[in-house]
Amino acid sequence: MPDLDPAVSDRLRFDDRGLVAAIIQQHDSGEVLMLGWMDAEALRRTLTEGRVTFWSRSRQEYWRKGDTSGHAQFVKSVALDCDGDALLVRVEQVGAACHTGDRTCFDVGALDVVVGEAS
Amino acid sequence: MPDLDPAVSDRLRFDDRGLVAAIIQQHDSGEVLMLGWMDAEALRRTLTEGRVTFWSRSRQEYWRKGDTSGHAQFVKSVALDCDGDALLVRVEQVGAACHTGDRTCFDVGALDVVVGEAS
Repeated sequence: MPDLDPAVSDRLRFDDRGLVAAIIQQHDSGEVLMLGWMDAEALRRTLTEGRVTFWSRSRQEYWRKGDTSGHAQFVKSVALDCDGDALLVRVEQVGAACHTGDRTCFDVGALDVVVGEAS
Repeated sequence: MPDLDPAVSDRLRFDDRGLVAAIIQQHDSGEVLMLGWMDAEALRRTLTEGRVTFWSRSRQEYWRKGDTSGHAQFVKSVALDCDGDALLVRVEQVGAACHTGDRTCFDVGALDVVVGEAS
């Protein structure tokens, strides 16, 4: 298979598992949908196929979002962060982003916080 | 120092470095500002102090955002994801989130993509 463009891979800082974190955001509403993980090949597929592919750490396999569930993520843009270890992937999410059926993976996980105020 | 509430820590799945990823989002605009890392103590401080504290992997120390730069992050909400290895922290960001002076850490990192369309 073709490699990820070296102009891109040179800017990436993979962790010791060869992965970078990928934040998935609904492109128009700004909702943060989920966090996934990509290796170089998952990123290459994501940049070139119009669909988001992750590396599943638990299953140790590539996972193109929506192939099983129908809940595909269509890529609108991808940006690398300043130090090359995180990606922001803006998508059109079909249906639920979370495997639980929730729209986002953060819908039911609110923690108690002390709210801060800029003085 | 006090420990993180066990009701919270029991829901967390730390990686082999004892960390979870923390997505930082501007609470009103929805901008994704940056990705940082938290251990149990950084999360405890973030939940209880009204300000975001990270664990710096490069410096191996706690880092309360804004203490040096003035660009503090005031906590509005924190949510854990479905599998307990990522946090969504919604904040009021003072000034630039990125150490480069950019508003977000993703401002200059756009990659070329093939855009996908839901058919």
